[in-house]
Amino acid sequence: MAPQNVGILAMEIYFPPTCIQQDILENFDGVSKGKYTIGLGQDCMAFCSEVEDVISMGLTAVTSLLEKYEIDPKQIGRMEVGSETVIDKSKSIKTFLMKIFEDCGNTDIEGVDSTNACYGGTAALFNCVNWVESSSWDGRYALVVSTDSAVYAEGPARPTGGAGAVAMLIGPDAPIAFESKFRASHMSHAYDFYKPDLASEYPVVDGKLSQTCYLMALDSCYTGYCRKYEKLQGKQFSMADADYFVFHSPYNKLVQKSFARLVFDDVARNASSVDESAKEKLEQFTSLKGDESYQSRDLEKASQQVAKPDYDNKVQPGTLIPKQLGNMYTASLYAAFASLVHNKTSSLDGKRVMMFSYGSGLTATMFSLHLTEGKSPFSLSNIAKVMNIDHKLKARTEFAPEKFVELMHVMEHRYGGKDFVTSKDTSHLAPGTYYLTHVDSKYRRYYAKKDTKVVNGH
Amino acid sequence: MAPQNVGILAMEIYFPPTCIQQDILENFDGVSKGKYTIGLGQDCMAFCSEVEDVISMGLTAVTSLLEKYEIDPKQIGRMEVGSETVIDKSKSIKTFLMKIFEDCGNTDIEGVDSTNACYGGTAALFNCVNWVESSSWDGRYALVVSTDSAVYAEGPARPTGGAGAVAMLIGPDAPIAFESKFRASHMSHAYDFYKPDLASEYPVVDGKLSQTCYLMALDSCYTGYCRKYEKLQGKQFSMADADYFVFHSPYNKLVQKSFARLVFDDVARNASSVDESAKEKLEQFTSLKGDESYQSRDLEKASQQVAKPDYDNKVQPGTLIPKQLGNMYTASLYAAFASLVHNKTSSLDGKRVMMFSYGSGLTATMFSLHLTEGKSPFSLSNIAKVMNIDHKLKARTEFAPEKFVELMHVMEHRYGGKDFVTSKDTSHLAPGTYYLTHVDSKYRRYYAKKDTKVVNGH
Repeated sequence: MAPQNVGILAMEIYFPPTCIQQDILENFDGVSKGKYTIGLGQDCMAFCSEVEDVISMGLTAVTSLLEKYEIDPKQIGRMEVGSETVIDKSKSIKTFLMKIFEDCGNTDIEGVDSTNACYGGTAALFNCVNWVESSSWDGRYALVVSTDSAVYAEGPARPTGGAGAVAMLIGPDAPIAFESKFRASHMSHAYDFYKPDLASEYPVVDGKLSQTCYLMALDSCYTGYCRKYEKLQGKQFSMADADYFVFHSPYNKLVQKSFARLVFDDVARNASSVDESAKEKLEQFTSLKGDESYQSRDLEKASQQVAKPDYDNKVQPGTLIPKQLGNMYTASLYAAFASLVHNKTSSLDGKRVMMFSYGSGLTATMFSLHLTEGKSPFSLSNIAKVMNIDHKLKARTEFAPEKFVELMHVMEHRYGGKDFVTSKDTSHLAPGTYYLTHVDSKYRRYYAKKDTKVVNGH
Repeated sequence: MAPQNVGILAMEIYFPPTCIQQDILENFDGVSKGKYTIGLGQDCMAFCSEVEDVISMGLTAVTSLLEKYEIDPKQIGRMEVGSETVIDKSKSIKTFLMKIFEDCGNTDIEGVDSTNACYGGTAALFNCVNWVESSSWDGRYALVVSTDSAVYAEGPARPTGGAGAVAMLIGPDAPIAFESKFRASHMSHAYDFYKPDLASEYPVVDGKLSQTCYLMALDSCYTGYCRKYEKLQGKQFSMADADYFVFHSPYNKLVQKSFARLVFDDVARNASSVDESAKEKLEQFTSLKGDESYQSRDLEKASQQVAKPDYDNKVQPGTLIPKQLGNMYTASLYAAFASLVHNKTSSLDGKRVMMFSYGSGLTATMFSLHLTEGKSPFSLSNIAKVMNIDHKLKARTEFAPEKFVELMHVMEHRYGGKDFVTSKDTSHLAPGTYYLTHVDSKYRRYYAKKDTKVVNGH
């Protein structure tokens, strides 16, 4: 029989224990109070110190997942990585992670890296789910790893950085199952955020265009999702049919706007669930065309006001980690979803969660998950326990802004470099965390695991 | 009913019409006669002139495939690109190709770029086949695009360059169907060829290590393939069970060595198909361990001699394009397969073709295809006709080495650059070919189609 309820069996999240508070950064940058905390809606920002990078975070997340759910590395038949943090233009991050499996005698693991801005993790996830449902599936698990470090040049974009990695185990009979038939994508050619300066870690960003692209793609995906749902289910879909909404979260303010936009979309399409009061307040804006509709401050304000009660119930539980860590690019959507599982655990049994993935350039998909409690170790309550998010957030070290800026200078200088040794200072890191020790004259990177021996070396 | 015989329905190949003969390059470089033509086994090398790149080649291959097989762009539900030529570290090549589909009102196309050296096209292909077999398939076709430009710094690696793009249409009831259950992979962490110098187009290559990695991965994949075949079919697999062998082809000499290695593998595993004479000549080498076995000149010579008759029948028909164009990285294996279809067309009906894909870093898979003539337009004979390879090879312009070197200097200087206008010289290009016109001050790239209007602009 074909595998049923294919989806996410287990999750682990790792993020650097080094961070800076956004209100302290506001003060240091001399910007108006509330610019980052209310304007962007962000509380705190994680960043890699000089001993961490997307490879070390991926190694940490994968080994921790395998250990905590007691998965034999030989039971993995596919592994795919989503990332937009390029350390090598040819060699995939996946091949670095293979070291874990080679050491256990397993080299028969399909999959490479999927790349398009913040969307790569979603592409990787779809590929792994499809694999389990395909004739090439060999009965083993798949692993998806989203790992990114978002850093920006000094200036207004800098507080929108972040860092983290999410690892997910994929297989049948999952507590987090895909409703694949409904998903809808919007893909198009845009220059809203891109990284054409190959020698620099920083992107080229058109902030205003990026926000419009995000909201346009959201509209298009929601329309497509509703159309597919209605065609297959024979009844109208509205936001009332979903219990939670999780968004790719570059900064929380955009998540607030996005949810309000969906509320407005339901009014515009005259969804049966929309109440009279909402209709009254938002109907006047349905005549706005194209860009006008995305730029209207009045619409934004009115729709956010109408959306507020539902935002608190259906969105807010999935905002904890993105607000505390910042933009994790490919890991952002899944860190937001992890926040929801952390906050709601077993109460998610029977619920539908809507997911919106966005990657500049641009690629976007809206899809939904059907959640059930499941059986330990693959249960919602065990996933929440394993991720241990409260502890991880509390165990962090706050950097002073001067020290943060100094570190950014070191990292800028080192980007793409060779022949250097790191501080090897692991005092901030938890036992079991991988870290970068040195890069040799041929750019080969060496990692070690705190409290254990050197790995990934030759 | 689940879709059957999922695989490749249609193919198109595009390569730059600009090339240089390897014997002329030998003479110009002052190396010994035969170093490139016999030592590497290469006849000619294609390269992008300053008006072409991996994006323009992808645009050309995709539009040509859609036109020649009369596929409505709205009938594409997934498109995935394999490439290791990084033009942007965040924005995928796939999003550039979306312009073709957006103009027809189709933005609901899943898929991004798959990346790991020369293996990305194979990953993309597997992902698309799996999609058609998954519950998320919506009945439309998938498109796989492998596009690469291989260029090397002046020196011994330069003659191993090449350039080209292959587009493949994926769906059920295909003349080129996957036998997915048998495929076997070997993935591991290696530094044989990589691109850590982000500001340079050129890779860092350890030629000797790369060849050993390739052959080790070949051994491992073949062992895995045989094991899976035997487990599922209940009988031994040997090379006699396959009609053709197609290899990732960085240069032809490695293809000769690879096929000979498989012959030796069959001797070492005592396959029933091995004749007494082969056994007599090669058995003595089966005691060689690990690296010794990969380095032995005597084994290499003896096995190539034993393999020669089979090489001529089972491998040589798939070597035309790689020998004429050079290494096309992700497109290389599929250009080799295209050569086989070109040379053997309908006679391939009922045949099994073994495919070996390799990407440094490293990722490798051996898989097999079952071929049937099929019905036009999705038939082997029509695919051969559409690809029109003889004509394309004959219509090329040979560059003198001085002019080639001059061009390489221009390209080196422009790599990763902005704010420039190309010559817009399309005199070498066939009508319908896309070309780069300029890159603006924000690194945005603009393309035009020969004999038609500007596209991909804003």
